[in-house]
Amino acid sequence: MELRNGMDLKRLVRTIPDYPKPGIMFRDLTTLFADPAGLRAAVDEIVWPFFKAKAQIDIIIGIEARGFILGGAVAHELGRGFVPIRKKGKLPHKTIGQDYSLEYGVDTIEIHADAIKPGDRVLLIDDLIATGGTAVAAAELIHRSGGEIVAAAFIIDLPDLGGTARLRDKGIAVHTLMEFEGD
Amino acid sequence: MELRNGMDLKRLVRTIPDYPKPGIMFRDLTTLFADPAGLRAAVDEIVWPFFKAKAQIDIIIGIEARGFILGGAVAHELGRGFVPIRKKGKLPHKTIGQDYSLEYGVDTIEIHADAIKPGDRVLLIDDLIATGGTAVAAAELIHRSGGEIVAAAFIIDLPDLGGTARLRDKGIAVHTLMEFEGD
Repeated sequence: MELRNGMDLKRLVRTIPDYPKPGIMFRDLTTLFADPAGLRAAVDEIVWPFFKAKAQIDIIIGIEARGFILGGAVAHELGRGFVPIRKKGKLPHKTIGQDYSLEYGVDTIEIHADAIKPGDRVLLIDDLIATGGTAVAAAELIHRSGGEIVAAAFIIDLPDLGGTARLRDKGIAVHTLMEFEGD
Repeated sequence: MELRNGMDLKRLVRTIPDYPKPGIMFRDLTTLFADPAGLRAAVDEIVWPFFKAKAQIDIIIGIEARGFILGGAVAHELGRGFVPIRKKGKLPHKTIGQDYSLEYGVDTIEIHADAIKPGDRVLLIDDLIATGGTAVAAAELIHRSGGEIVAAAFIIDLPDLGGTARLRDKGIAVHTLMEFEGD
């Protein structure tokens, strides 16, 4: 497996100042996903520690919507199935839901109630972790479904916003490929 | 490349009666995506005709949101980049948009204005084609961006709703893996 170094991969991230509002530096991964070598390297680097450790992973779970792009590719790389966690009301069968706090108000994510078999070992995927609100809620859904979280993996960590620390405080292993500080 | 026959793959689709409203038989692909052999077979069968014909494909474009799961896996399989087409207001950089008709009203999808280079050969991916409203609008965005559509590929075709016929009428090659009639 040929890995690119973090700097190369980081250069493929486009930074959009003042989006979605003044003072926010938005880290846009569409430019990395659109780059064949970048997408390949991101998937390779996401799965590498689990491949190296011969970790048993039964299923990949991705968070809507950008987590679907990376999660679909990671599932294909590992030869595993993919389960989506979606915004409320988007999944057609029986679901379980989990609320999480936004800056103003509350939102809900859902998973199909039968998507995880008890004891399934899960790799949780999203493109970026900021405050970790969605990721913590996703982890809660996985636990309530009887799954065991091998790790949560993200391309980008914004460590100043504390999401990776929140996940690690809950005993969840976290794997990220690059950090942007001062966000 | 080991292919499964269409019947096996079709059995992995879950049908949910009366969703999202009475009289609709919803074809749920989350059960296929969650099955390791099912996801692998779907990706293999989606890319097979292009692989066999040695078709040049420069980029995979997927339509939000389920098209991201399949599109991410297909991009990884082909070693190409992935470009998302999203609902209005979801992409952070400069976009071009295309309206399309819904049963009641109009919706808009968008692509980043710089996502396609003129002459890029595109494989357009979504999980299912029904009336084809979104797919035709996506094809329009690709044409307006200077891309050439090699084909549009879907796991499920609902031929009674006419989407594949609409695409073919516009000269777009369509590749689907299975049909459900009477929908």
